[in-house]
Amino acid sequence: MSTILKQLVHDFQFLPGVGEKTAQRFAHHIFSKDRTKAYDFVQTLTQALDQVKYCKTCRNLSENDQCDICTSPSRDKSTICIVESPSNIDIIEQSKAYNGLYFVLHGVLSPIEGITAEKIGIPMLAEIISQYEIHEMIIATSTRIEGEATAYYLADQFSDRIKVTRPAHGLPSGGLLDYIDPQTMARALSGRKFIDDAS
Amino acid sequence: MSTILKQLVHDFQFLPGVGEKTAQRFAHHIFSKDRTKAYDFVQTLTQALDQVKYCKTCRNLSENDQCDICTSPSRDKSTICIVESPSNIDIIEQSKAYNGLYFVLHGVLSPIEGITAEKIGIPMLAEIISQYEIHEMIIATSTRIEGEATAYYLADQFSDRIKVTRPAHGLPSGGLLDYIDPQTMARALSGRKFIDDAS
Ligand SMILES: [Zn+2]
Ligand SMILES: [Zn+2]
Repeated sequence: MSTILKQLVHDFQFLPGVGEKTAQRFAHHIFSKDRTKAYDFVQTLTQALDQVKYCKTCRNLSENDQCDICTSPSRDKSTICIVESPSNIDIIEQSKAYNGLYFVLHGVLSPIEGITAEKIGIPMLAEIISQYEIHEMIIATSTRIEGEATAYYLADQFSDRIKVTRPAHGLPSGGLLDYIDPQTMARALSGRKFIDDAS
Repeated sequence: MSTILKQLVHDFQFLPGVGEKTAQRFAHHIFSKDRTKAYDFVQTLTQALDQVKYCKTCRNLSENDQCDICTSPSRDKSTICIVESPSNIDIIEQSKAYNGLYFVLHGVLSPIEGITAEKIGIPMLAEIISQYEIHEMIIATSTRIEGEATAYYLADQFSDRIKVTRPAHGLPSGGLLDYIDPQTMARALSGRKFIDDAS
C-alpha cells in the first residue's frame, strides 16, 4: 500500500466507530472511478471547518456569530434547554416538541477530569438567564451518572430564580441522547417534571 | 442545523455503508473541541486525491507512474494475479502467500452494464503478458457470478499462451461449520484431498 494511502487509512480512524477495516474500505472508495464526489466532500469539509464556529450566545454550531435558533423571531425566548452537545439539538428539533432556546455545555461536569462549571459555560448561561426573561430551564443532559450530576448542579444553581425541569422518564437509562428516536424524545419532553420531583 | 452542516451530513453518505445517522455522528465529531485531527484528515485526503493515480502497468493505486510492486526487484515477474480492485491486493499481500505481479480490472465484465473487456483493461493485460515473460496467471476475481464469468473469459483468452489458475475454493480458516453457506460447503467437499496432501 502506498505511503499516502496508509496515512489516509490511519486518518479515517479518527472518525467515531471507524476501525482499520472500515478505514480501508473508505480509503479505497475515495479512489473509485469517479472521484468527483470525493472532491466535493473535501470541499464541503474544508468549508465546514473554516466556517462553522460556536454561536456566541448558546454555543451551538453556527456559520454566523449567532445561530439560526437564537436569531429566529418565532422561538419562545422564555424557555432554555440545556444539552451536552450540538448533536443533541438536532434530535430535540426533530421531535418538534420544543420551540425554545438552547444552551450547549459541550461536555458534563467532571471534577476528576478538570471539567469545571466554567468550562461547561455556566457563567455564560447565568448571564443569558439574567438578560433574557427566561422562566424555565429544561435540563436535557444524558441519563448517565455525569449527566445526572450536572443536572443536579444546574438545578441547585438556578432553581431559586427559574423553574428547572428535566425531560420525563421515557429516556432509556444510561444512554447517550444521540441514539434517541424523535418519538421517544417528544414523549419525554411533553412529560417533563420539576427536578425536585424527578426520579 | 446550519446549511453547511447539512451538506456535510449529505456528503459523508457517499462513503460505503454510511447512512444518515452515522453521517450525523461523523459531522458532529468533526467539530469537537480539538479540530486539529479534522484538519490533518482534510490535508491527507486532499493530498491523496491529488497524488494517488493508477499504476500505468498494473492499474493498482500508486503515487508514482508505476507502483511499488511493479518496480520492486524482488517480485517474481513470471506470475501475474488478476484482481477486481486495488483493495484485493492488500488482502493478498497480507496473506504473504504471493510474490508476483498484479493486474487490477477495476470491475468485472458485465455486458448489461456496458462493462466490456476493454473497460476492464484486457488489451493492456494482453500487452503485459507479451512484454513480460509471464508463465502463470492466477485469476483471483470474486466467487460471485460476474467474477466467475470474468475468470472464464480470461481463461479463454489466455490459456493457449500461459498457465491460467484460480485460487482453490473451500472452507475459510478458523471458522465454525455453522456459518458456511451450502455453495462453499459443496465446493469444499468436491475439492477434498487426501489428508496427507492437505495444507
Ligand atoms: Zn445560538
Ligand atoms: Zn503496478
